Amino acid sequence: MTILTRDDDAHIATLTMNAPDRLNALSMAMLQALHDAFDTIAADDTIRVVILRGAGRAFCAGHDLNELRSLRAQPDKGAAGLKALFDRCTALMTRIQSLPQPVIAQVHGLAAAAGCQLVATCDLAVAEDGARFGVNGVNIGLFCSTPMVALTRNIPTKLAFEMLTTGRFLLASEAQHQGLINRTAPAEELGEDTRALAQSIAQKLPAAVRIGKAAFYAQSHMTTAQAYAFTGDVMVENMGLDATAEGIDAFLTKRLPDWPT
Amino acid sequence: MTILTRDDDAHIATLTMNAPDRLNALSMAMLQALHDAFDTIAADDTIRVVILRGAGRAFCAGHDLNELRSLRAQPDKGAAGLKALFDRCTALMTRIQSLPQPVIAQVHGLAAAAGCQLVATCDLAVAEDGARFGVNGVNIGLFCSTPMVALTRNIPTKLAFEMLTTGRFLLASEAQHQGLINRTAPAEELGEDTRALAQSIAQKLPAAVRIGKAAFYAQSHMTTAQAYAFTGDVMVENMGLDATAEGIDAFLTKRLPDWPT
Amino acid sequence: MTILTRDDDAHIATLTMNAPDRLNALSMAMLQALHDAFDTIAADDTIRVVILRGAGRAFCAGHDLNELRSLRAQPDKGAAGLKALFDRCTALMTRIQSLPQPVIAQVHGLAAAAGCQLVATCDLAVAEDGARFGVNGVNIGLFCSTPMVALTRNIPTKLAFEMLTTGRFLLASEAQHQGLINRTAPAEELGEDTRALAQSIAQKLPAAVRIGKAAFYAQSHMTTAQAYAFTGDVMVENMGLDATAEGIDAFLTKRLPDWPT
Repeated sequence: MTILTRDDDAHIATLTMNAPDRLNALSMAMLQALHDAFDTIAADDTIRVVILRGAGRAFCAGHDLNELRSLRAQPDKGAAGLKALFDRCTALMTRIQSLPQPVIAQVHGLAAAAGCQLVATCDLAVAEDGARFGVNGVNIGLFCSTPMVALTRNIPTKLAFEMLTTGRFLLASEAQHQGLINRTAPAEELGEDTRALAQSIAQKLPAAVRIGKAAFYAQSHMTTAQAYAFTGDVMVENMGLDATAEGIDAFLTKRLPDWPT
Repeated sequence: MTILTRDDDAHIATLTMNAPDRLNALSMAMLQALHDAFDTIAADDTIRVVILRGAGRAFCAGHDLNELRSLRAQPDKGAAGLKALFDRCTALMTRIQSLPQPVIAQVHGLAAAAGCQLVATCDLAVAEDGARFGVNGVNIGLFCSTPMVALTRNIPTKLAFEMLTTGRFLLASEAQHQGLINRTAPAEELGEDTRALAQSIAQKLPAAVRIGKAAFYAQSHMTTAQAYAFTGDVMVENMGLDATAEGIDAFLTKRLPDWPT
Repeated sequence: MTILTRDDDAHIATLTMNAPDRLNALSMAMLQALHDAFDTIAADDTIRVVILRGAGRAFCAGHDLNELRSLRAQPDKGAAGLKALFDRCTALMTRIQSLPQPVIAQVHGLAAAAGCQLVATCDLAVAEDGARFGVNGVNIGLFCSTPMVALTRNIPTKLAFEMLTTGRFLLASEAQHQGLINRTAPAEELGEDTRALAQSIAQKLPAAVRIGKAAFYAQSHMTTAQAYAFTGDVMVENMGLDATAEGIDAFLTKRLPDWPT
């Protein structure tokens, strides 16, 4: 049984984490499999959107605690092994945001600790009504410091502090209200609703979406003045695409654009 | 017919974009007219608040696509002309936030692409219940990269990403809920409600509002420590105003301050 | 009568501002008393959480206007004295966030101007349903520039601008909705609900909470890449604690951890 499966359909790649007996824990093997899959997709021009989901009862329960315990049992108390593990996890999060294509988390059951970080890191997220989100490492004495990086860049400050120090979980409706996810859906419609969101993006001009996603994260840490100087050039680059000229002409002449489908 | 009109009343200047047949598109001419009007207002001590609105069916539909197409048809594919246009647009956005007086967007109908950027850039915004907000350039293959700068500094990250990549519009109630606008009003009360907000600010000590608006944007990109060092000096400067000393004395002695009206 | 009282119970220190006739104004004396109390608590390993509340009708009404007036009456128009006062206020705010233990504001009645800043600065906040929050200095001609630093790092941009320029107060429900506070409670249950939140944190491993709080603010101004590099090391440090190894082992073997209680 492979730890990660990929299914492509109509320019949409669906990655399914497949370690249901471990609630799809982000073991070193899972992190590596995800990273490799995203590297492959990055170079695949036929893919326009990625959906990330989990098999079994939960989306993802975070790091593999058995693995953490084993690494911690090393003579150096895990200093080397744990560092490598957290670096690998960070590399995955960075890879998702540097991927040319948008990534949608399709969340059911549970998204905990680094699993919640994964949701916060994906560009978009859809969750079933009963899904729960938490950064509950504090309950076992391991504060969710790396998940905090993604979480605090998505939800209000005081709520993030509360979740991190109390371990409280948000229900899907609260997560949506607070900006952690985009939409909720009844459990039986989760796949369909996530796919509809993916399709709405897959129908756009792929080159424009790629330019836009890259610019989205590049400008996020800049001052407003820096961000405008940067994105002004991005707009000119985008306008340089022949397909964009075609898109504008089609709109003005009230016809459909002649775009790759 | 002039492309922009200005009406002053009781220290409030109302600027009306007046190209209704083009849904008040931000053509080079409109951008220049707005910039000139704000420059004039910046030097006008009688004006304390500015309301920005649009004539006709919509607030503003964004850039003028006919103009974009013409510029793109140049031998350099518009590299020079488009750069000048986006620079002019950025200069307007910067001018609004550097204006001494607060600017309120009064939004009806539609605020799309650079029109939505204009709403996000104004200090405050009031919209009629039926108004819609979107950054839908992706639909014609032109990702709203410059509007993104203002948008991502006003609403949650994942919602911004969704609007930019799907072109989805927000209704006024959702825009208010998400922080893009301050208030909604029934269509027939939009002007009155916007004016009431303007008046509530026009009644304050103008010098204090000017000091505050300048400090608001100056500190926004600083670290907390830098921002406190900066605003501490601003507080001392503000306390140096004789009118502020009068305001404090009036409050403590339970009388109205002797302020300019 | 002392200006500030401290009561300890079960690892929770409760600080009560006790100048009810002045609505617990942040006079130089109150600022100093609070700073001293936090310094003492910082060195007290028995304390895991701090609750900050006010005696009388209000949480805190902000700076002491009589004191501001007196300082302003100096020959230098208060330049030296006011600078010292605002520096002292900033030092208190910085002290709260640098405190090893989480601080919860327990808010009733009014939190105005620097009192609202205090709420925004505390790590967490619980308020009674009837509590009101405002940065209303603009009404007396003194724009709340220093409170703005804390406020704009907690709530949406346009709402912050509105509160600062109009002086409008938020009710507790709106403050909670907008991220300024974590929870609301009926007046008669405010103390109990705040205490329950404090206890839920006091039950965690204190060393993990301390590591986490320090990391929370340290990473907040970093780029995502910088924040991950930093928090990766924090995770390794956290894993180095014997109590964390115990916490993980206890979880995996389905028993309670042998932790300090």
